[in-house]
Amino acid sequence: MTASPFDHPLLSGLLGDADISAHFSAEADIAAMVRFEIALARVQAVEGLTGAEAADAIERGLDGFEPDMAALRDGVARDGVVIPALVKAMRRAVGTPHGEKVHFGATSQDAIDTGLALRLVDVLAVLDERLRGIVAALQGLEDAQGGVEVMAHTRMQAAIPVTAARKIASWRLPLERHIERLEAVRRDVPVLTFGGAAGTLEKLGEKGPAVRGRLAEALGLRDVDHPRHSERDGQAALANWLSLVTGSLGKMGQDIALMAQNEVGEVKLAGGGGSSAMPHKQNPVGAEVLVTLARFNATLVAGMHHALVHENERSGAAWTLEWMILPQMAVATGAALRHAGALLDGLEFRPHGG
Amino acid sequence: MTASPFDHPLLSGLLGDADISAHFSAEADIAAMVRFEIALARVQAVEGLTGAEAADAIERGLDGFEPDMAALRDGVARDGVVIPALVKAMRRAVGTPHGEKVHFGATSQDAIDTGLALRLVDVLAVLDERLRGIVAALQGLEDAQGGVEVMAHTRMQAAIPVTAARKIASWRLPLERHIERLEAVRRDVPVLTFGGAAGTLEKLGEKGPAVRGRLAEALGLRDVDHPRHSERDGQAALANWLSLVTGSLGKMGQDIALMAQNEVGEVKLAGGGGSSAMPHKQNPVGAEVLVTLARFNATLVAGMHHALVHENERSGAAWTLEWMILPQMAVATGAALRHAGALLDGLEFRPHGG
Amino acid sequence: MTASPFDHPLLSGLLGDADISAHFSAEADIAAMVRFEIALARVQAVEGLTGAEAADAIERGLDGFEPDMAALRDGVARDGVVIPALVKAMRRAVGTPHGEKVHFGATSQDAIDTGLALRLVDVLAVLDERLRGIVAALQGLEDAQGGVEVMAHTRMQAAIPVTAARKIASWRLPLERHIERLEAVRRDVPVLTFGGAAGTLEKLGEKGPAVRGRLAEALGLRDVDHPRHSERDGQAALANWLSLVTGSLGKMGQDIALMAQNEVGEVKLAGGGGSSAMPHKQNPVGAEVLVTLARFNATLVAGMHHALVHENERSGAAWTLEWMILPQMAVATGAALRHAGALLDGLEFRPHGG
Amino acid sequence: MTASPFDHPLLSGLLGDADISAHFSAEADIAAMVRFEIALARVQAVEGLTGAEAADAIERGLDGFEPDMAALRDGVARDGVVIPALVKAMRRAVGTPHGEKVHFGATSQDAIDTGLALRLVDVLAVLDERLRGIVAALQGLEDAQGGVEVMAHTRMQAAIPVTAARKIASWRLPLERHIERLEAVRRDVPVLTFGGAAGTLEKLGEKGPAVRGRLAEALGLRDVDHPRHSERDGQAALANWLSLVTGSLGKMGQDIALMAQNEVGEVKLAGGGGSSAMPHKQNPVGAEVLVTLARFNATLVAGMHHALVHENERSGAAWTLEWMILPQMAVATGAALRHAGALLDGLEFRPHGG
Repeated sequence: MTASPFDHPLLSGLLGDADISAHFSAEADIAAMVRFEIALARVQAVEGLTGAEAADAIERGLDGFEPDMAALRDGVARDGVVIPALVKAMRRAVGTPHGEKVHFGATSQDAIDTGLALRLVDVLAVLDERLRGIVAALQGLEDAQGGVEVMAHTRMQAAIPVTAARKIASWRLPLERHIERLEAVRRDVPVLTFGGAAGTLEKLGEKGPAVRGRLAEALGLRDVDHPRHSERDGQAALANWLSLVTGSLGKMGQDIALMAQNEVGEVKLAGGGGSSAMPHKQNPVGAEVLVTLARFNATLVAGMHHALVHENERSGAAWTLEWMILPQMAVATGAALRHAGALLDGLEFRPHGG
Repeated sequence: MTASPFDHPLLSGLLGDADISAHFSAEADIAAMVRFEIALARVQAVEGLTGAEAADAIERGLDGFEPDMAALRDGVARDGVVIPALVKAMRRAVGTPHGEKVHFGATSQDAIDTGLALRLVDVLAVLDERLRGIVAALQGLEDAQGGVEVMAHTRMQAAIPVTAARKIASWRLPLERHIERLEAVRRDVPVLTFGGAAGTLEKLGEKGPAVRGRLAEALGLRDVDHPRHSERDGQAALANWLSLVTGSLGKMGQDIALMAQNEVGEVKLAGGGGSSAMPHKQNPVGAEVLVTLARFNATLVAGMHHALVHENERSGAAWTLEWMILPQMAVATGAALRHAGALLDGLEFRPHGG
Repeated sequence: MTASPFDHPLLSGLLGDADISAHFSAEADIAAMVRFEIALARVQAVEGLTGAEAADAIERGLDGFEPDMAALRDGVARDGVVIPALVKAMRRAVGTPHGEKVHFGATSQDAIDTGLALRLVDVLAVLDERLRGIVAALQGLEDAQGGVEVMAHTRMQAAIPVTAARKIASWRLPLERHIERLEAVRRDVPVLTFGGAAGTLEKLGEKGPAVRGRLAEALGLRDVDHPRHSERDGQAALANWLSLVTGSLGKMGQDIALMAQNEVGEVKLAGGGGSSAMPHKQNPVGAEVLVTLARFNATLVAGMHHALVHENERSGAAWTLEWMILPQMAVATGAALRHAGALLDGLEFRPHGG
Repeated sequence: MTASPFDHPLLSGLLGDADISAHFSAEADIAAMVRFEIALARVQAVEGLTGAEAADAIERGLDGFEPDMAALRDGVARDGVVIPALVKAMRRAVGTPHGEKVHFGATSQDAIDTGLALRLVDVLAVLDERLRGIVAALQGLEDAQGGVEVMAHTRMQAAIPVTAARKIASWRLPLERHIERLEAVRRDVPVLTFGGAAGTLEKLGEKGPAVRGRLAEALGLRDVDHPRHSERDGQAALANWLSLVTGSLGKMGQDIALMAQNEVGEVKLAGGGGSSAMPHKQNPVGAEVLVTLARFNATLVAGMHHALVHENERSGAAWTLEWMILPQMAVATGAALRHAGALLDGLEFRPHGG
């Protein structure tokens, strides 16, 4: 057991997801924020707020930027956010006289939230692709084995026989709806956060909106009039979506674990976990872990809703809570989709009473 | 204190909402299910599954239907659902020979979930209207007082002065997004549930889809190919939306409570709660209760996500959990919107340092 | 469905518990607070803070006190607590000149929290007795049927045969530990809350501690130096305990539902719920609802932990959240114990493969 | 942001706790399980189940044992638990003929839960010591500054002046109660788990209880008649305790953040976080993060209660959920105690209106 199940030397094989975790590494985090700062310098040059030389110097200075991670960690411990220490390191890397232009007009949350948005775009692309893969796999399963007659169960009792197709559809259709729901999530996630100290870009004067517009364009993000420093509905809506996905997969896992019971025997799994005490067993590990990940996200989603109560223009307490929860939910969702794919691969329906 | 804060003789004035609660009364519940059963009989007559006399007899027999509530309660205690006892009472009310046609081909969940859908349509209409009212009130507040200079606070410390408009917009914009998000919720909520024992309408033979289509039309609900007996994403998505609304209002309440602190004094409220020990106090009760309701829904939303892990074709355990949570969340949202409206009415910004 | 499942005309038969709910009625609430106010007047007379005539007048005036509930509800809506309106009504009932002595030196939370403590003592007595009854029933079951050989299942797969005794012990032992844990809870619950406006009994001068001590004695509660207005660990610890109880019963319910599956058939239940679509079914409603109630409390317990973050000397937001959650958890626990008793009554183990 | 805030190169400075995390590393995990396996072999030799040479060979073979972590991770991914792969590696390290005696009679959960118990004993010792340190610091603060007059606030409004002592006591007393509550937690945590496949030690015949008793003694753990494979109340009770601690510290953090507001100014903090946009600010980062950690644990504790619904003799789904939650809660608690200590060090009360 570990405090970091997703990145643990042992447990990550079960609970982690390398593709999603990659987007939440410290390196990816810093790279995204460097991208923000370079783009910011560049568009400020275009708008005449700084010279092109400053932008050039910043881009050059941050090329291959490798900050002292221990110093940054100390900075986070002291400031609650990495930006003061990171900007200091960036400025040093750029050197005088242009270093001081790094992060001009921005606040910590601008860099951090935008950096996260850039990475979440990639995270959602991975999740979307996997979700479509599962839907296709379920469609394939229905085509191939949908005619097998299995027993429907209601309230944990045998009801009447149905085709496997009925059961498979009840796993597939929610996932199709989640793909549709992703469209709405995609309106909220790839949003530029750029507002300065209190969201008003007060240091940029009348150039504020123009800089912001160019910055959004440069980063491939949506420009919004008001930075959402204290409006966290987009983050909560994303968390909801993640938990809807794992919840629906958890339902599938629960069904498969129930059907794979020895006494029921209506599905046979391609693989199964071994037991240290009972070599004869084939444990439905993949099905069980889908339930685990569903309950994990179902628990954590509450925290993201509590983080909506974000006091004033920026709440250290509520914002930091998001950091502790949202990435875990994303990796858990990646892991669930990975397990679901493996579970369906080789799943075989057996006729009821067969 | 009470186990039923929303319907409590004392607390309901603070925490309840009569308009929303009305849709969750036992009477409203039964009325909606009666409506389902009558419409079902009617469309089965059209499709030739029963005679028109049966449909007429059912409609007549259920006109003014007033079941013995104690018998129904005993039925719920025994069967876990009201339908067996309710259908028995309905059949008796209709009498022989047509009574036995009541509920033909349907299962408990068809009547209960459809009955809920019919009522949720009305609930969402109320919430939508109130939400739009709050948005308008915030727009009006911005127009009237947006120019007042107040202090922005980040991480619980004074940052820089901003206009009240900035603050008001951060309350309004999430609500506008919730209105947009309601569109998606409205695809999931007004859905007919009609599938029979295991979702296959096995008793209706090839007439199944036609009856289902006509029934949806008669009730003004969406027809879907597969009843969502075990697919609960629509319910969870609704719960998410409710908690997003209360969360955003809770943020506004938190801000107002902070600004109304005596030492800050940047808003003045029209009314305020009295204290039994300190007659001089004006407590920002409305602002506080917005925080309470936000945290209540943020807590409960997790339960709706856990209910996604719905085993097999129908889970008594998971489905019943929805009954315990979803209506409470809806009433809490109604109450929050009610309080938000009252709170904004007469709210006055005071200039910082003024 | 309803916002008040515990007191609902239909659902309360399944989800409610009349014995526990009785302690959370508005009448019980007011009666307990009246008891607090009368005892307060009495001990203040003993300590010479008021005359004996005042105490007599208060006791007489509040004998058969029946406040106007609608006025109280309006008071709660306005003040966030019932006390200002209730004290006003009490004073009117007592009349001049002694009415004004009602509630002297106390604050709303003193009356409300003490009133709750008085009722929780009774609630815990009911739960304790039922818990002991379940333990005895399990012991009896083990004695009578413990020798039946059933199949152990690990990770949802048949493992090796064990006796029913092994299974029954795994249900009983946690409950025995909960009975032990109740001792600790009983140190926190029956505590007098009496501190005045900010917990310092500032209006009683040096008589404060003596009045408090006598008041505790009169009410049969523990006297503590500092009122716990803002220290809510006792409430959270109680909520924890309630959810531990329902969680352990939920595990038993889940096991029974799994063993009662038609394909497994290792327990037979005395009764079972009927189905509207499938008359042949015997649904394990009691087992399922134990799972429901476990998940309900497991969800709500989080809210009680969030309520620990109670700002300053009294938080309207956090305190009100307790009102919405704690009573529900208590009734859910009562209902779970009731169902557990009924479920074990007549439960019959069937030998594996028999 | 990261999926592993506690072990993250950057965030761990703020959110992590090296002392607690050390007990949750993969190395500590394996070391504890090796300790279990060696002790098991040793006591089985004493009881004559294996020869002393086997025990010697196992102890020697596992001295300096360094398994191939990648192979173990693959094993976890396949089997859902590390034990099959780990035992295989241990057996290879011991060699023939004695290697096969490793793990004799035990099941995965015996090694994993006992290994966790051994580590939790150390974790609780650290937390206990820190908690006592905070209590002492608060007592010291009260002694030194308790006489400063500050304003009490109820419902976010100024109430009446009180001494700082009143406020400090409301932070200290719950912590003292948590120290008392720890005694009960300590009855549940250091418990030997040893039951074999289904909890009956079926492979040890009549030697079972004797081996178990000696094993408990060798490991310094409590011997219990029935292994608690499926009885998870001890884990949930521990989680409760952790969240009670962080909740009470979160209340203190919230109070300090409120008192440190510029407009209130009733406490001055020794240090404060810097801002990237506003160099003049001193952010109360330590106070805020106490709130964050409280809400994090308050959210996660629900998951531990859901894990009580542990089906049959061992639930892969519920047990794995504990792995994802409990260690995080422990580290969060360690971090909160660390921050609380730092926050109180140098905290200075300022007289109200001073």
